[in-house]
Amino acid sequence: MKEFQVNDCEDVLLSMRLIVDQLNDVIGKLDQEAIKGMLKKILEGERVFVMGAGRSGLVAKAFAMRLMHLGFTVYVVGETTTPAVREEDVVIAISGSGETRSIADLGKIVKDIGSPLITVTSKKESTLGRISDIAMVLPSKAKNDLDAGGYLERNMRGDYKNLPPLGTAFEITSLVFLDSVIAQLIMLTGASEAELKSRHTNIE
Amino acid sequence: MKEFQVNDCEDVLLSMRLIVDQLNDVIGKLDQEAIKGMLKKILEGERVFVMGAGRSGLVAKAFAMRLMHLGFTVYVVGETTTPAVREEDVVIAISGSGETRSIADLGKIVKDIGSPLITVTSKKESTLGRISDIAMVLPSKAKNDLDAGGYLERNMRGDYKNLPPLGTAFEITSLVFLDSVIAQLIMLTGASEAELKSRHTNIE
Amino acid sequence: MKEFQVNDCEDVLLSMRLIVDQLNDVIGKLDQEAIKGMLKKILEGERVFVMGAGRSGLVAKAFAMRLMHLGFTVYVVGETTTPAVREEDVVIAISGSGETRSIADLGKIVKDIGSPLITVTSKKESTLGRISDIAMVLPSKAKNDLDAGGYLERNMRGDYKNLPPLGTAFEITSLVFLDSVIAQLIMLTGASEAELKSRHTNIE
Amino acid sequence: MKEFQVNDCEDVLLSMRLIVDQLNDVIGKLDQEAIKGMLKKILEGERVFVMGAGRSGLVAKAFAMRLMHLGFTVYVVGETTTPAVREEDVVIAISGSGETRSIADLGKIVKDIGSPLITVTSKKESTLGRISDIAMVLPSKAKNDLDAGGYLERNMRGDYKNLPPLGTAFEITSLVFLDSVIAQLIMLTGASEAELKSRHTNIE
Repeated sequence: MKEFQVNDCEDVLLSMRLIVDQLNDVIGKLDQEAIKGMLKKILEGERVFVMGAGRSGLVAKAFAMRLMHLGFTVYVVGETTTPAVREEDVVIAISGSGETRSIADLGKIVKDIGSPLITVTSKKESTLGRISDIAMVLPSKAKNDLDAGGYLERNMRGDYKNLPPLGTAFEITSLVFLDSVIAQLIMLTGASEAELKSRHTNIE
Repeated sequence: MKEFQVNDCEDVLLSMRLIVDQLNDVIGKLDQEAIKGMLKKILEGERVFVMGAGRSGLVAKAFAMRLMHLGFTVYVVGETTTPAVREEDVVIAISGSGETRSIADLGKIVKDIGSPLITVTSKKESTLGRISDIAMVLPSKAKNDLDAGGYLERNMRGDYKNLPPLGTAFEITSLVFLDSVIAQLIMLTGASEAELKSRHTNIE
Repeated sequence: MKEFQVNDCEDVLLSMRLIVDQLNDVIGKLDQEAIKGMLKKILEGERVFVMGAGRSGLVAKAFAMRLMHLGFTVYVVGETTTPAVREEDVVIAISGSGETRSIADLGKIVKDIGSPLITVTSKKESTLGRISDIAMVLPSKAKNDLDAGGYLERNMRGDYKNLPPLGTAFEITSLVFLDSVIAQLIMLTGASEAELKSRHTNIE
Repeated sequence: MKEFQVNDCEDVLLSMRLIVDQLNDVIGKLDQEAIKGMLKKILEGERVFVMGAGRSGLVAKAFAMRLMHLGFTVYVVGETTTPAVREEDVVIAISGSGETRSIADLGKIVKDIGSPLITVTSKKESTLGRISDIAMVLPSKAKNDLDAGGYLERNMRGDYKNLPPLGTAFEITSLVFLDSVIAQLIMLTGASEAELKSRHTNIE
């Protein structure tokens, strides 16, 4: 793509500011009962399974890695040695739209098994939102939205509505939210950073 | 972990606010020449290769996926069909400490091949920072820091220094930064959201 | 599992012999028209996509890696930078039973897109077998069979029917078959081992 | 690659026969003491870790999946929730040449930790072979060999030495061998196919 000229990097900074604004916005809109319910289910589960497709799947993996550091028995759906889910486990799905087909199909299987299902999503009224025991709503633009939450309206450039693209806002919000769930779990369990580090892979 | 009681979720909200504060802080400290250099190298590269270990590797994948949506030929080091790197390609490493051993080893190989190497890191003075053509510094706490950037000092609770743990601050900052690099590349290349969506996988 | 005593390793050798017998058996039962059809479709496709779940997915990846070494543009469904499938591409599914739900669902999407679909399977009369342009049948025990192809009947120990377990026979057969497809493609395209090696990743 | 014409598929069948011949050859050359030692170490290990690069890494994953089905606690090095290796665990490396740099580096770390290291390889006298507690030698052509084991000499076409290419012979041999180790472990532990199936993922 050598034909394009780089004159400045203003949009990088602008985009970062918009993302920060949107994160700020979301903090005030979170349902605290849902958060507490989610924390309880995670602590009660025998084992934790996480799943997501595409970039939401990467967020799910980032969350799973920290749960492992915290001492949870945790698996990523689709990885090599992930065993069968049982009723006493808890499953966490990440899907901005709540409609990602493969994840929604797996969500239904989870409910047939009888395990608790938590979905982190931007849409309560979605296939996954509706079948979940807890729909943890992060109000942010998902992949198929034209514009969500109104935060883009504050975009200074009227001609430019799509910054950042697709489900980016949801993905970043869910990573920040889930890392903050980790922070809360650290407080609850009294884990020290040294303990977390001792579980961090020593062969990478 | 059924023995732990969930009474509130204040730490979730507190942690989200700290993350937002830290992101805000970083925006003002970015080296704009480095950003422009990075954008140029990405646009000039025949193909883009990304690499990272652990959660930084997940951030690398999230960035690669969006570059693909934008029409770049892009590969994740370690995935199945990733070919050999050639001199005319560009390689982007993500490493908070700049010292992740496997990534630093690969960085040296990249420089032996003669390809440009960009490292996104919190440490300019690190193994990867020193050998890179561009060290894109995101000033944030990395995995082995006790406290970085001073932002934790503003933590309202004096007794609580570790929020969020390990390299979380760097990982979130790098995701937000790289998604904003995507926003800039969208502006530069004039790509529309519809075009991005047309490249998004249709079999997931 | 410290309670178990290792006295000999006869079953390792016996199992290897059974696998070799079964492979020998399969060679004589392959439909050569299907093989030629498969080779043509692979050579005609603009790009090749492979998919499979579990161990069949690992076989799919092993095949994709070699196609890349041979110079094909090839993607694994589910990996980070895999783009949207288009009509002019070819998709290869690997499923012993031909019924793996997620893969069968994707197979239907592939047919809706209009791309040629090849399924490597042990069951012609299966969901995937029926919707595929080419059902490449490898007659071998799949995961849900009690005993397939009769080869286990020749097992010397009457009391021991399950060697090797689940879909192992199919998975090994499909790897051996697909590596032999690679051998044929090398002959057809005149690729040298040196050329293959030049495409082999140089940063692993 | 539309320019190539498919007239027959003889090389597919020839290659399959060569692979079968080579497998037959290897069975007679295995060191049974090494196999028994390997079985003991796997049974004694608190947890099992497997690792390999490229196609050897895929074989490692296929083995790990079956160990999980058998009830072992098993992890793939590099996957999301793989914890730190401890002295009481056992690590299995797969490397045809015994020289794969990243795996050899990790092998050294494993020996520093003090865990038993088993390497499945075609070269006893290699970096990994030498540092391993057990070097399980599968005499077969590895990636950097011109010709190994002499089996290719029996190739009927004198002009064609490279069938199958690169490390294919080793990779297939190691999969067949490791699946046969699984067969032995099933006999030893008395696991039934139904038990294996009950651990097979129910959400794929």
